[in-house]
Amino acid sequence: MRNIKLVLQFDGTAYHGWQMQKNAPTVQETVSGAIERITGSVPQLTGVSRTDAGVHAKSFVCNFKTNASIPSERIPAALNTYLPPDIVCLFAEDAEDSFNARFSAKKKCYTYYILNSKQPDAFLRNYSWHFPYELDISKMKKAAKAFLGKHDFVGFAASGFTVKTTVREIYSLDIEKEGNLVKITVTGDGFLYNMVRIIAGTLAFVGCGKIEPESMAEIIASKDRKRAGVTAEPQGLFLTEVFY
Amino acid sequence: MRNIKLVLQFDGTAYHGWQMQKNAPTVQETVSGAIERITGSVPQLTGVSRTDAGVHAKSFVCNFKTNASIPSERIPAALNTYLPPDIVCLFAEDAEDSFNARFSAKKKCYTYYILNSKQPDAFLRNYSWHFPYELDISKMKKAAKAFLGKHDFVGFAASGFTVKTTVREIYSLDIEKEGNLVKITVTGDGFLYNMVRIIAGTLAFVGCGKIEPESMAEIIASKDRKRAGVTAEPQGLFLTEVFY
Repeated sequence: MRNIKLVLQFDGTAYHGWQMQKNAPTVQETVSGAIERITGSVPQLTGVSRTDAGVHAKSFVCNFKTNASIPSERIPAALNTYLPPDIVCLFAEDAEDSFNARFSAKKKCYTYYILNSKQPDAFLRNYSWHFPYELDISKMKKAAKAFLGKHDFVGFAASGFTVKTTVREIYSLDIEKEGNLVKITVTGDGFLYNMVRIIAGTLAFVGCGKIEPESMAEIIASKDRKRAGVTAEPQGLFLTEVFY
Repeated sequence: MRNIKLVLQFDGTAYHGWQMQKNAPTVQETVSGAIERITGSVPQLTGVSRTDAGVHAKSFVCNFKTNASIPSERIPAALNTYLPPDIVCLFAEDAEDSFNARFSAKKKCYTYYILNSKQPDAFLRNYSWHFPYELDISKMKKAAKAFLGKHDFVGFAASGFTVKTTVREIYSLDIEKEGNLVKITVTGDGFLYNMVRIIAGTLAFVGCGKIEPESMAEIIASKDRKRAGVTAEPQGLFLTEVFY
């Protein structure tokens, strides 16, 4: 049986995340339906991660097994014929038998956008978190350094998760300002449930003076969710790259 | 009576244009409703131009008369409380009695975005025209020069308009490529119905080799709608600035 790897892009605004759910439209369900149209059978579709409602992906990887004979280079255009315009298949290839979009992932990169302006923006409403209090970027950059490396991030996870370990390694955490958009880019070996959004919310609290950058290392070490900042809104989050 | 000038930004995706219509949501109707909430009476709201369904504005000017006492600097935040998130009031001021958003406009700038890529883009679907055939930007730039200056643009107007004259002056028409986005920026003293979209569609025809750049001046002079290109899709069009 062939093992097809797909790279998708999706605007998550209209979906209740990736993962199949009863009574709510999800990206997984929509993509499965399009795959069924081109292969003739319902796929077992494995995604790199669950995503929350409203979260976006510039590059989301998934895989499925099939006996269909369609050449992989023709799959993107074929799928895009059946996909709604807010989900696009960018790339497809025949992967090795052992490839699993979720378990083979070595590294992921997420980007979080904060709109730091007094008034909201009609075009960014679904793609950023509107934060009206002035953010001090240099303080945020200082605090960001404390996240680098291997830490137990249990204080930066929403409850309700089931994972073997809450230790994760963060390779980079960069903050840039472009106009009134603050762009937070984070790369790591994996992320706990809501972890990137809690990091973004905590960095916003640092930027507006509610948390001192010097106390960041201690807050991480405390493993206490209450000491971190708020969970930033979902629509500012983009999965931007997955490394295998 | 005070004469209030407003600068709005709106994502036109969900609206049937600016102008009030029966049985269809419009920007004018939505903004009028928000003004009524803060002033207590239904305004006579004049917009700089009608816009088509799906067309956007980064800077749309309108004005209305009122006896309400709210300071103009407090109007944007007050209106934004009642406006849906796809319409934002950016600025308000007390204008001179004679100011009329439509008739006082001296110059307008529009931007049109063409996504020139094989596959569509989930994030640009409502903000660009997806054109999959390769565009030759240098040919488009060459053709653009023929539009500059005063011409009778009747061949670049949709039928159904009623205007005194179809002569308009174009001050600048620039074409840039940023990644796979082709950005057409045009400034003029005014534009006929669908004129910017027909210019964009014609330039796309030049870019893909259907029309020779050398014949552009002659096509304009022919005043024949059939010789120009298609009317580019509405969602690529943004009103970006109005000059008074």
